[in-house]
Amino acid sequence: MGGVRVLVPPGDDMALVELAGRRVLCAADQVIEHRHWDAGTPLELVARKALARNVSDIAAMAGVPSCALATAAFAADAREADAEAIAEGFRRAGREFRCPVVGGDVGMHAAAGAPLVISVSVLAEPGPSGRVVTRAGAHPGDLLCVTGRLGNAWGAAGTGRHLSFVPRTAEALELVRILGDRLHAMIDISDGLAVDARHLAQSSGCSVEVDAAALPCAQGAAWQSALGAGEDYELAFACEGMPPAEACGTPVTVVGRFIDRQPPWVTAIVDGTRLDAGNLGWEHGLPERAP
Amino acid sequence: MGGVRVLVPPGDDMALVELAGRRVLCAADQVIEHRHWDAGTPLELVARKALARNVSDIAAMAGVPSCALATAAFAADAREADAEAIAEGFRRAGREFRCPVVGGDVGMHAAAGAPLVISVSVLAEPGPSGRVVTRAGAHPGDLLCVTGRLGNAWGAAGTGRHLSFVPRTAEALELVRILGDRLHAMIDISDGLAVDARHLAQSSGCSVEVDAAALPCAQGAAWQSALGAGEDYELAFACEGMPPAEACGTPVTVVGRFIDRQPPWVTAIVDGTRLDAGNLGWEHGLPERAP
Repeated sequence: MGGVRVLVPPGDDMALVELAGRRVLCAADQVIEHRHWDAGTPLELVARKALARNVSDIAAMAGVPSCALATAAFAADAREADAEAIAEGFRRAGREFRCPVVGGDVGMHAAAGAPLVISVSVLAEPGPSGRVVTRAGAHPGDLLCVTGRLGNAWGAAGTGRHLSFVPRTAEALELVRILGDRLHAMIDISDGLAVDARHLAQSSGCSVEVDAAALPCAQGAAWQSALGAGEDYELAFACEGMPPAEACGTPVTVVGRFIDRQPPWVTAIVDGTRLDAGNLGWEHGLPERAP
Repeated sequence: MGGVRVLVPPGDDMALVELAGRRVLCAADQVIEHRHWDAGTPLELVARKALARNVSDIAAMAGVPSCALATAAFAADAREADAEAIAEGFRRAGREFRCPVVGGDVGMHAAAGAPLVISVSVLAEPGPSGRVVTRAGAHPGDLLCVTGRLGNAWGAAGTGRHLSFVPRTAEALELVRILGDRLHAMIDISDGLAVDARHLAQSSGCSVEVDAAALPCAQGAAWQSALGAGEDYELAFACEGMPPAEACGTPVTVVGRFIDRQPPWVTAIVDGTRLDAGNLGWEHGLPERAP
């Protein structure tokens, strides 16, 4: 007795398992102090981001959020108010995303000043169509499309879009409804479009070309930021034929095309020149991080 | 759309939610370096403990393990071998407990030497009877019973029972089968019997008296350790009438009795004297920790 049937294994945005005879999506992710937020960022927003990142993974699979679990490891000298701010952030975000935190644990580091680590797991169900969209399934000839605008998501402490974004769960379900089987593969853009488009391409056994001039840049963002800066939490998807111009009021833009597998995985076309874009993404908090 | 019906809210060993029309148990817990294991403990055993603690929560609810999610936050100077040891620990423990880790995240602290934090979430189903046992439900007159032996669970680095215990999932299901409705409430002993018996008493609106002379002490453990040291991961339960002498080969011992609510919550009877035992439990890693 025990154990579970794994329908989509680790390596996608979420695992899909069969639990009590039903298909359930589940995933876990974490945010780490000094890496995923700047000093001075209100902890309520940090908690919101911790949950929102996970809900963005639900969007990537076209799932419907059910609930979340959370653990927080505080420094030994953390204040009671810190824990309360995080709890309040989770309560609000849980209501906003219809994904309440139903359990978890609060722990303490042995040392004062140790970095706060918040880990969140989420559970979700497939949407009304039953369709779960994975990273694998893009075909040569498919269009690479994105929702919303990309780049400059970090901003100054407490102000960046990475702290206020709304996960694209509604847009994902709308895309499934409109596109049906023409929606071939999907991912959320957390590490930068270059890296996440590579994930789509690699999982699908294709390569992909991105047209830098077509990128829907956020205000003040150059194509380099739109392609590489990350923390956008928009959707990138492979679509057979044209996508709708928008989903739930969010613009949808064609930014590239999948091609037969050939190195490199991701090419950026900039002023007619082809660049290997597979390494343009950023790792959260590494020195090359966008400002 | 979205959200979940919460049948057993936060405050028990696990939350019980209705997901896709089925009842699912879920919980999250974490282990933190310098607090939940000693320096020099093999990381494979640390991963095992991280999963086993969660599976012990499943046992406390009389659930059947389904799967787990895990995140690990490593120091910036962690070695590849550390991550591999933890992954291997999870693979083995997942097989041992029939609770495979199906997803998660590996992250890095910004700083070298930052404490490793491993967070694990587990999903479970109710057992064959459908019965889920909570902390609330003990009545005055019920017996307080425990499985196995208590105390001295910590030991030297890499050797303690807290690193090798087998969660009592099978025993819990057997107790449900044998006792049926006479099994009123249950918890796993992680913080020490005194603290966890208080959780049973408080959740049930009773008090409880523990007979120190009746405690099934582990080798070398005095009653103080059996009552207060924690990390035993045995079951404590409230039973109407006598329990079986064993469950699945594990001894079951009557160690006390629930009484009408009156302060203190937990009384230890030692050589005919009544002591307030509610504060004898230990917090992981605090200075008063058992050796």
